[in-house]
Parts: sequence; structure tokens; C-alpha cells
Amino acid sequence: MRDHHDAEVRRRLSELVIETPSWGYGDSGTRFATFPQPGRPRDVFERVDDAAEVHRLTGTAGAVAFHFPWDAVEDYGALREHVESRGLRVGAVNPNLFQDPDYKLGSVTHPDAGVRRKAVEHLVDCVRIAGELRSSAQSLWFADGTNYPGQDDLRARRRRLVEALSEVYAELPADQELLLEYKFFEPAFYATDLADWGSSLLVCQKLGERARVLVDLGHHAQGTNIEQIVALLAEEGRLGGFHFNNRKYADDDLIVGSVNPFELFLIFFELAGEPLPRLTIDQAHNVEAKVEAMVLSVVNLQEAYAKALLVDRDALRAAQEAGDVLGGHEVLLDAYRTDVRPICAAVRAGLGAAEDPVAELRGSGYAERMAERRQAETTGARG
Amino acid sequence: MRDHHDAEVRRRLSELVIETPSWGYGDSGTRFATFPQPGRPRDVFERVDDAAEVHRLTGTAGAVAFHFPWDAVEDYGALREHVESRGLRVGAVNPNLFQDPDYKLGSVTHPDAGVRRKAVEHLVDCVRIAGELRSSAQSLWFADGTNYPGQDDLRARRRRLVEALSEVYAELPADQELLLEYKFFEPAFYATDLADWGSSLLVCQKLGERARVLVDLGHHAQGTNIEQIVALLAEEGRLGGFHFNNRKYADDDLIVGSVNPFELFLIFFELAGEPLPRLTIDQAHNVEAKVEAMVLSVVNLQEAYAKALLVDRDALRAAQEAGDVLGGHEVLLDAYRTDVRPICAAVRAGLGAAEDPVAELRGSGYAERMAERRQAETTGARG
Amino acid sequence: MRDHHDAEVRRRLSELVIETPSWGYGDSGTRFATFPQPGRPRDVFERVDDAAEVHRLTGTAGAVAFHFPWDAVEDYGALREHVESRGLRVGAVNPNLFQDPDYKLGSVTHPDAGVRRKAVEHLVDCVRIAGELRSSAQSLWFADGTNYPGQDDLRARRRRLVEALSEVYAELPADQELLLEYKFFEPAFYATDLADWGSSLLVCQKLGERARVLVDLGHHAQGTNIEQIVALLAEEGRLGGFHFNNRKYADDDLIVGSVNPFELFLIFFELAGEPLPRLTIDQAHNVEAKVEAMVLSVVNLQEAYAKALLVDRDALRAAQEAGDVLGGHEVLLDAYRTDVRPICAAVRAGLGAAEDPVAELRGSGYAERMAERRQAETTGARG
Amino acid sequence: MRDHHDAEVRRRLSELVIETPSWGYGDSGTRFATFPQPGRPRDVFERVDDAAEVHRLTGTAGAVAFHFPWDAVEDYGALREHVESRGLRVGAVNPNLFQDPDYKLGSVTHPDAGVRRKAVEHLVDCVRIAGELRSSAQSLWFADGTNYPGQDDLRARRRRLVEALSEVYAELPADQELLLEYKFFEPAFYATDLADWGSSLLVCQKLGERARVLVDLGHHAQGTNIEQIVALLAEEGRLGGFHFNNRKYADDDLIVGSVNPFELFLIFFELAGEPLPRLTIDQAHNVEAKVEAMVLSVVNLQEAYAKALLVDRDALRAAQEAGDVLGGHEVLLDAYRTDVRPICAAVRAGLGAAEDPVAELRGSGYAERMAERRQAETTGARG
Repeated sequence: MRDHHDAEVRRRLSELVIETPSWGYGDSGTRFATFPQPGRPRDVFERVDDAAEVHRLTGTAGAVAFHFPWDAVEDYGALREHVESRGLRVGAVNPNLFQDPDYKLGSVTHPDAGVRRKAVEHLVDCVRIAGELRSSAQSLWFADGTNYPGQDDLRARRRRLVEALSEVYAELPADQELLLEYKFFEPAFYATDLADWGSSLLVCQKLGERARVLVDLGHHAQGTNIEQIVALLAEEGRLGGFHFNNRKYADDDLIVGSVNPFELFLIFFELAGEPLPRLTIDQAHNVEAKVEAMVLSVVNLQEAYAKALLVDRDALRAAQEAGDVLGGHEVLLDAYRTDVRPICAAVRAGLGAAEDPVAELRGSGYAERMAERRQAETTGARG
Repeated sequence: MRDHHDAEVRRRLSELVIETPSWGYGDSGTRFATFPQPGRPRDVFERVDDAAEVHRLTGTAGAVAFHFPWDAVEDYGALREHVESRGLRVGAVNPNLFQDPDYKLGSVTHPDAGVRRKAVEHLVDCVRIAGELRSSAQSLWFADGTNYPGQDDLRARRRRLVEALSEVYAELPADQELLLEYKFFEPAFYATDLADWGSSLLVCQKLGERARVLVDLGHHAQGTNIEQIVALLAEEGRLGGFHFNNRKYADDDLIVGSVNPFELFLIFFELAGEPLPRLTIDQAHNVEAKVEAMVLSVVNLQEAYAKALLVDRDALRAAQEAGDVLGGHEVLLDAYRTDVRPICAAVRAGLGAAEDPVAELRGSGYAERMAERRQAETTGARG
Repeated sequence: MRDHHDAEVRRRLSELVIETPSWGYGDSGTRFATFPQPGRPRDVFERVDDAAEVHRLTGTAGAVAFHFPWDAVEDYGALREHVESRGLRVGAVNPNLFQDPDYKLGSVTHPDAGVRRKAVEHLVDCVRIAGELRSSAQSLWFADGTNYPGQDDLRARRRRLVEALSEVYAELPADQELLLEYKFFEPAFYATDLADWGSSLLVCQKLGERARVLVDLGHHAQGTNIEQIVALLAEEGRLGGFHFNNRKYADDDLIVGSVNPFELFLIFFELAGEPLPRLTIDQAHNVEAKVEAMVLSVVNLQEAYAKALLVDRDALRAAQEAGDVLGGHEVLLDAYRTDVRPICAAVRAGLGAAEDPVAELRGSGYAERMAERRQAETTGARG
Repeated sequence: MRDHHDAEVRRRLSELVIETPSWGYGDSGTRFATFPQPGRPRDVFERVDDAAEVHRLTGTAGAVAFHFPWDAVEDYGALREHVESRGLRVGAVNPNLFQDPDYKLGSVTHPDAGVRRKAVEHLVDCVRIAGELRSSAQSLWFADGTNYPGQDDLRARRRRLVEALSEVYAELPADQELLLEYKFFEPAFYATDLADWGSSLLVCQKLGERARVLVDLGHHAQGTNIEQIVALLAEEGRLGGFHFNNRKYADDDLIVGSVNPFELFLIFFELAGEPLPRLTIDQAHNVEAKVEAMVLSVVNLQEAYAKALLVDRDALRAAQEAGDVLGGHEVLLDAYRTDVRPICAAVRAGLGAAEDPVAELRGSGYAERMAERRQAETTGARG
């Protein structure tokens, strides 16, 4: 029906790159419990192996993002070689500033200058690590915030944050960008220091051109129109990238596309009009099989992008200019209703990946093999 | 414990000025029904009379904001003189761009250039009216937005909005400022063109220094930390003012302080550290007596401000610097728990107003008198 | 792929009946404005004509629901005959208890016994009207509630409501059922007297077996799992029916399926396991073409139901019993991803309706014809 | 104005009993981190010691609730004696069914009958423990739910839950009641098996008269009117008790009264009209000093209750019967605005507790002493 640009759709779909997160392959949980899964990787090298399996099946997950200190190793050259030997490249570097007890009241916004210094040093260290890994981005999320009114001075915290990031930005080599994430709440429950896109964007404006905003789909208030934020940030040249997941309630970190796939399509519709920013999955697979969850997530992203590429933009523009409310809406529906599984399968086949990645994963016995191997070798871990 | 600066608290409290809205004295309702109230003013002059009664009782409501074309008259000099004769001054001018059928798909963001032209002309006309009324502010709220994905191009709408407002800003005399309001949703239910403070602030940055953001307490997603937005906008020099009301669900437009008075106190705590911005009430009194509702609203604002002024900021800072989470919180609680009715009564008495404004209003028979007079004269309206 | 029960799917799909609301064909708006549309029906007979056009195109909208006093006529026999002459039948009767000024503080929960009496009398009158129209249901929604803490006694209001409905239920003939709707908020902004399904269900338990809960998709808090409520009410034998629409924020009353079609599919998945309850559209088409909006809504419902019928319930059960989290989820996804437009088109064709109802409506010139006729005859209205 | 029943207010205030939770004295955190606090108790006996300190300071925290297996000991008689020797009594018993890896997909709703059997056995064991501790209540919260549509059958899960609880209820001696908690979401992110008060109440109806609903203030959707739920459950005779805390976003588990103290007052206003149900604190003190947090929480509850007792109920009823919207609201405001610190201090003094519990705690050096002792004895723990 929409074959006018079918080859173009396939071409663009085959160029899609999703970064999967090393931390998405390990155990994760809620504050109530973390349930260990059989076959979970025992170190960063095995996490890369799982990422490679996801890429093998989908053809579209060619980069892996790291988290430090979780993924810290002695020899980053060796880690990079392992990544490349698996057919992947290194994605963004994610410094972790929320687990050390020193950060109980904040990291770069902490009232104590010594803690802020420690935080900045870790950030600068991650710039160095990124250099060794040939990563092109620092992806920063701060758990910083307060739980009670009066706990700290909201303005002072913001000034400290700008001061710390300015120092980090000054250390950033020209081939690295700084992505600044925001989050509505959690783990801070009164005031999160970067609570919305506007807060992050203002800081980016102060830092410089290579500072851009990172959007995590689970980090907004209920009802927030995320595709509109995407459009706005893109217009301002400040859309740095995505952390994909889905949520029904708060930051549920469920599989992307599992709650509202239509919203995901609308986001890709806004993205598809220009070069794609960095696209990363960031989920917590608490009860589901992790590698399969990641494969399904990549498939869902492929399908959302495919549908977005199918939109008849000329017809859409014509309806919009005519003030034809339902006409414009129906152009989007027309693309969304299409079953894009065949076109996605064809594109994956063209990339040497699986036509039906979930079925192939299930058929391959990968999960069972890893459960056995990683269990058996528990005493002789590599990392 | 808190008498160290009692005189200073009284002085600042006596300087508080709240603008009440002319439209808050007329009938209002929901989409389901509007219930006419006895004694409602029949024209803008009577609306000013009601505002004067609120000021007489509270000593703190010395300005009245107007809405056009609702408050349009032939002779703005005469309206201004009426305002001044009642002991008031003219507050902000609020252009209405949401009722004309032409605005069904938007005003300054409408896909049709002719409609946008009409909207800009009304805005420019309001600049002229403000000049005649000696108002110092245009307070702009746009109902513009879309109800369905695909209805219009989100980026194009934003460009049209910036273009239109640039034209208006160019017409703005040096003694007028432009306040730009945002709203999470309603009456647009898919994408509101200015949906959050960040969207408004970005436009203000493009317009110039006299463009500032106006915060309406009912225009945020559930859970949004409004006092943090206040702090942030103030730090950026872009906090233009407030529309006060309260809500439990959406933009309920209830009496300010009636849902969460502690939040109102926290907002005033952030405001109290510097010169106050323009403070306006914007409520819809659907089922309650309107003049009494306005009096109660002003009293609630006085009390919230009084409590904010009572905060021991030295003790607060000391706790915050020590990382004493509960210590800082308890300093705020100490002020909030104080019964400030006596100090507010004393300040009002010092201003020649009522110690207990609600009781005095009830005792005065004002409502009954207006119900009779305005009913009786229905056939001979003045406006 | 899923042709094992294709004929069964078509059969059940062809039996789907959606009631469209007479009030959905007239002008509607927000509290800010109502924009009149060309061609809107001038009386209940023309509203029935529009409903008949929707049924002609979709084959699935064979009943029309009425609202009183909006649809009041002198001769209900004549109205019923008009309905039947258009190939429709009468759906539920909806008594309106929210527009009369007497109801400012409530109807059946009003503190004044006289107002409650008036409300009960209207309800009993609607039972009589339903009898004359051969409608089998009273569909009750109460706007009753309070805007401020202390405005009224929450328990007393509930007792009054139960007392009033008991009187109405006693008047209900055996061939009528009583559907009791709930709503989270609006137009009441502090406490709505029937705020959630539990509140409605408890009242239904007190009334009797023919009292059941009606679910309106826009009447819940953000995040509420509506399909779970459906499952629960169905298990209790108390699921009375639906008011379909969609919302992103509050009770937006947008076209069903326009915000989250996946959620709509999940609701139909829960419905599809047993005889369908009464299914009604209840939307406010503020900016879009009304008849087309209704046609699109019916199409969206057909598609959601078709997908729900396609679910491989045996495979689903097997995955669930095995604790295969993603396996169960993927069975649902498999059905949801299917393009059901062909099967829906075939079913419609089999019913003598349009394969592509929206395209046929647009091609037919119906909207233009009505705009001309109903405009031209404005002075000689029929009703 | 409010001295008419001052002695009665003091009497009732002095009879208030709050249960503090043993688990509220240990370390707690978010899914991102748990920050260990100095001086945290090392076993259940030390947790009881902290609870006793809270009671010593407030005079109102005379019961301590337990959690099993967290508080499991060999000799429950010894634990009970320890509790009583500290001037406390045993509150509710809380069985934990969410941490064992077997419960990954649920406990009493798990698809596997063996897991359900294990869960029921733990529940029955807790009935026995409660008997030994002379506790009069099982307080049940189930983390059970699903994360993805299709993961399990919603109706089957509900049937399993009813079946399991029926078995437990049959084992319940006459001097124990069963409290059934609900929660909107977390740790389940698609469908929580008991998601709202209606779901819990229906199950209680099936179980019997000693099954009642427990309300946790953090377990509702945003905007939910909790005092209305209280009123409704009380009217039905099914209000079992409270878990007090406060939240701005989700289930934040902050100090009760720290987000919206007016709402807490409104809840106590609904409670104060009849005998109080079981009132328990359930909070997670992630960044603040735990014993001080508990003391502040009890003080906040005392103040909310004191204000609720001060409401002039005769004046309120008169305003309500007259349909005087603001009159009724102002009666509540009048009580709420009162500074009840003096009356609470007097009541505490009368109970032999501290006039200013937080100041006395800070002055006493308790926290420092515990930090030293419990640190020093780390190698020789008692439990």
C-alpha cells in the first residue's frame, strides 16, 4: 500500500543502531527484592557476550554502553578488544554516582565540598576511561536530590551542580559529548536536582554546544507528552539521545513498547525526520528472561521505527495545512496499523540476523547453555 | 523564639500586594454547567467594585487584573479612573484568544496565517489598552494545542508561536513586561503548545529580557515540585509572577491554600528571599460565594507569606550546611506550625482593613446587598 | 497464521454492537469554549439520522443511547419508530442531573431533601420513558460531589445516595437494568460521591442483582489498570457496560483508541472471554468532524475486538501455567501486531456496510450535505 | 472559641496509641542504594529498644509491630517479655512473602501450587507466632502481581488469592483479626493483585467479619481522596487500620505529615468521630536519622489528631445543612490553623513524656550513644 518508498524504508531501517546496556544483562530488582537469574553474566566480558548475542539475532544492537565502576577493569584496551571481537563497538560511558555511602545526600550537589570533589574526580576519570574505550559520550544521570523540604537549599544545589559539570566539561575532549539526563523523582522524593528536560537544557546551555539532553522514557510525570519534548529539543539542537524502556506507573523500567507502543511510534515519528540521536535501552528485567527481554526490546524498536518510516509525510502535511484534524490523525493511524513484521524480518535477514529473533533465541538454547556454563564455572570467574 | 525580627515580618507582610482578577467575580463553571450566582456584577465597573470590597477587607488586594475582550469598554480612561476612585490600581492585562470560533485550531499557532494575524492584532491592541490603563504587564496564556497526534506539526506550531510573539514583543513599550504562562493540558488534550515552564522560558529567551514566565499553580502534572520551579526561574531572572489557585486533580481552580497549604508556604518560602514578583489570584468559584472566596484566598496568601517570613533562615542554613536532614526540615515546620492569625490580623488592622475579613464580610451584608441591587437594576446595566 | 478459528472470529466480530450516543452528534466543548460545527443536528431526530449513517457505514453501531431532558420529545412512540425506521434500536437511557441550577450542590446527594426529591422524580420519569422507548437500561452518572473539605458530610451524602437509588430501583421493571457509573473527579474537585468502581459496586450490592457497574475509560486516575477492573467486575457478575473514549490527561473524552490502542486491545481481551456487556461510545468531539469521529471510533473498536479474538488462548494458558513471563506476553503481542483491517473490512462487507467506512464517508459528501441542509432549514426545525 | 471541650480533647489525645514498626528502625533504601546508618539496631531486641525510646519521648507509641521472618527468634515468649519490660505491647504481626526467590512470580497468587502452599504455611505460622506474642492482628500485604500483559491470568490469580486467604482465615483464632492491605503498584508494574481498597474489601467480604481493609497512605494513585475512602470503609464496618507515611510521587514512604499535613488532618477528622482503628507507622527513613524520624512522625500524628478533635462539629453540621459551602470549609480551617503544640506538649507531660520530644531526643545523646554501643559490640550481637 505504501510501496512508494519501500526501499528507502528498508535502507533506513537497516541503519538503525541501538545501544544495549551492560547493566541490563545482570540481576536487577526493586527495593523489595532482587531475584537472581540463572545464567546471568559474572563479569563485564560475559555481559558483552550477551550483548553480542542480541546483536547477532537482531542485526541492530551493535553497540554496548558501560557503567562505571560496575564495569571497571584493569585494562580497558583489553575490554575494547573484547567488544570489537564480538562485532560490537563501545557506546556511551555512564558514571555511577549513587551507590557510594558518601553520596547519601548527593554527589555533585552535596553540601560538602569534599564529596563534590570526589564526584567530579570520578566523572573526570570516566572521561579518561571513555578515551581508552574510544567511546564518544559521557551519559550522566544524577540521583541527587532531597527528600524533605528544608533538607538543603535548592538554589545552592543547582549552583554546585553547574560548577561541577563545568569542570567536567572543560576536561571533555572534542570527540566526546556530554549527555545530561533528568528524572522526575526517585531515589529523591521531594526535589530531584535535575527533574525535567528544562532543568537539564538550562545546564547544557551553560556548559557548551556538546552538552545535550538525554530523554529516558520513564522519567516523566504521568501524561507528559514525550514526543513533544523530542520535537522541541531537536529544534533547539539539544536532543542528545534516549534511554528506552516503558512504564505504566513510575520509572518501572519495563520492556520498551510493552505499555504503549503507539506512543513509541509517535516518538519515532518525531525522530525519523532527521539523523537519529544516540538510542540506548535502559531497563530492569526483574522477573523476565534478560537476553530475551533485550531481544524483544530491539524488535519493538525496529517495528516502531519501521512504522514511523512508513508515514506518508506528504499526505500528512496536506491534511495539516488544510486544518483537517482527523485527516492528519488518520495518516498516522494508517502507518501504525500496518503489520511491519515482514519488512523487519526482511531487513534483519539482509543484515545476516534472524527473521524471528525471539523464536531463534528460544530455539538456540542460548539461555540454557549460559545457565549451565556460568553456573558451572562460578568458582573460576574471569573478570 | 521567632520574635527576633517580628517588626520586619510585619513590615514586609503589610507591603504584600495581591492582584485579584476581574473575571473571578463573574459566573464560572465547568463544561457540564455554570450556575449563576445572585449578586454577580453585571459589568466591569461592578467587578471593580467587588475587587475594592476585597481590598477594603484585606488591605492587601490593591490591584485588579483585566481580561480582554471580556472587560472591553469604550473609554479606558474612565475605567482607570473608576479603578483609582476605588483605591485600586490596574494590574496585568490578559488578552483572551480562546473563545472566538476562529481559534478552534489555535490562535498564534494556528495553521492559517489569517487567524494568526487576527490573534497578533488582538495582542497588539491589548498593548495599547494597557498603555491607556497604565498597566505594566501583558499576561499571556494560550489555549493553543492539538487533540490528536497528526492533527498538526508540533515544530511548525512552535515556530509560528515564536514568530507571533516576536512581533508583539517588538510593540511592547519599555514600561510593559510580557508574562508567558504555560499549562500542562486543557483545553488541548494531546499537545499543548506551551506545556511546561521550560517551553515558556525558551520562548522568553528568544524574545528578550522583559519576557518572563508566569506560573499558575494548577498548570502542572501531579507531583510537580512547584517551589523548585520558582527557585529555578528566580535564579535565572525569569520569574514573572503567579496565578494562584489550588487543585487536587487537574486545573481545578479552587481557592488557593484549600488543598495543600503547606505547599503554598513552601512556595512563599522560595519567594520571600527576594523582591516579590507579580502575584495574582486566578480561580473559578463554581459553587461558593465569590467575594468571600476571594477574601479567603487573600487571607490564605497572607498567612502563607507570614509563615514564610517567620522561618529562621540562619538556623536553616546551619542545619543544611551540616547535612542535618531533619534539622533543616524542622526549622521549616517550626514556622509553619505557628498560628499566624494574630500577626495577620494586626497587620491588616494597621492597614485599616479588617482583623477578621471573612467575619466582617459576612457581618456586613455586602453579598445580600449586591444580590438585591444588581438583581433589581438588571434592566438598567451601566456597562 | 492464526486461521485455526478464522470463521469464528468473523462470526463474533459481525455480532459486535456498539451504541452511539445521541449527545455525541451535537456540539460539545470545554469550559473555555464550544465551537459550533456546520451540519450539526438540530434535534433528536437528526441526531438519530447521524447515528444511522454511522451504522450504515460500519454495520456495528446498531443502537443509539439517549440523554434526558436533552432528547425529550412529546411522543416517545414516534421517536422509537423513527429510530427503528432508520434500522436502529434504542440503547440505554441516560438521565441528566447536572445542569439544573438546583443541582449546584448535588442531586441525589444534595443536603436539601427537596432537591433530592426532584432528582428521584426525574430518575423515575426516565424509567417510564425507557419503557415507552423499549430501552432495557438506565445508565446513571452523577456529577454529585464537593469542592472543599467541610462543604458537606461525606457519609451523609453516601447514605442519601443509597436511599435515593433504592427508591428508583424499586420502580425498575424487570426488563430494565440499572448501570451505575463512577468518576474520579470533575465537575467535583474535592470528593466525588461515586469516585471509583468500588464505590459503585458497593451501592449495586445494596440495590440488587440488576444493578451493575458501568466503566467509562476516562474516569480513572492516571495509571489505573482498567482491564483488571473489567476482569474483577466480570468475575463478580457486576460488569454492566462501558463508556468508550480515550484520554491522555483527565477525562479528555477523545476518540477511543487514539491515545493507547494497546490498552483498548487488552480491555477487549478481558471482555472477549464471555458475552459482551453493553458497549457505548461517550466522547466529546470538540475540534474534529463529529460523524467521522464516530465512524473512526467504531472502526477502532472493531479492530481492538478483532485482535482480541485472534489471541491464541491455548498458547497463552500454556505459557502462563509454565511461569513463562515473556512467552505469555508474546502471545498477546502476536495478535496485537496483526493488521486486522482486511478481516474487519470483510466482516463489514458481509454486514452490508463499507469496507473502508472513513473513506466512504468522506467520498459520500454526507457532511457537506448535512451542513447545507441543516443550515438552510434552520428556521424550520422539525423537533 | 474552642475551649468548650478542651478537657475532652486532652483526654482523647492522651489515649492515642500509635504502633511503630520494628522494620522502621533498621536500614532501608531504594532500589539504587541502601545507606547504612550508625547506631542501627542489630537485632529485634534492639529494635524494640528504639521503639521504647520513641514511646518514652512521645507517650503515644506504646505498641510495636513485627515482621516475619525478619523478626524471627527462637523464643517468642522471651521476645514478648522484652517488649513488655520496655513498657510496650506487641502490635500487629506482618508476614513477609516477597523476598524469597520462590516468590518471584507471586506468593498466594503464584501459578505454581507448591509456592502457594509454602506461602499459606508461612501465613499460618505467623498466626501461631501472633498467638505466642499475644498479638491481635495479622497485617497482610502482598507484593503479588504481574509486570506484563499476558504474564498470567488476572482472574485465576484472584481466585488463588481468595482460596489461600480462606484457608488462613479458617486458622485464625477469635482474638486475631486479619487486615488486608492494598497497593496501587510496586513491586508489580502491570497489575497488582490487590490494587485498591475495593479489591481488598471484596476479598474481606468473602472471608468474614474479622477481615478488614488496611489503608497505607502511600498506596494510592495521585489525587485519590483518602479521607473519603476512610469514611466509606468506616461506614461499612471494614476499616481495619492505617499504615502512616507520606508521599509526593509514588510510595515514597516519607515521614507522615511531611508532604501534606492538611490531608493528614482531614483523615483524622474522619477517624475522630468514632473509636480509632489500629494506627501504625510504616516508613522508610533512607537519609534521615531513624529514631528522630519516628519521634517526629508520632508528634505529627498527635498534632493532626489534636486539630481534628478541635473541630467544632456542631458549627460544621449547621453550615453543611444550610448548604453554606465556605462556612463548612472555614470551620475546618479554624481548627487546622490552631497551633496545637502547647496542648500536645501538655498532654505528653501528663503522660510522663517529653514536652518537646525532638529537642529532648537531640539533647539526650541517645543517637550518639547507640552509634557507639552498637558499633562497639558488633562482634558480639545478641540476636
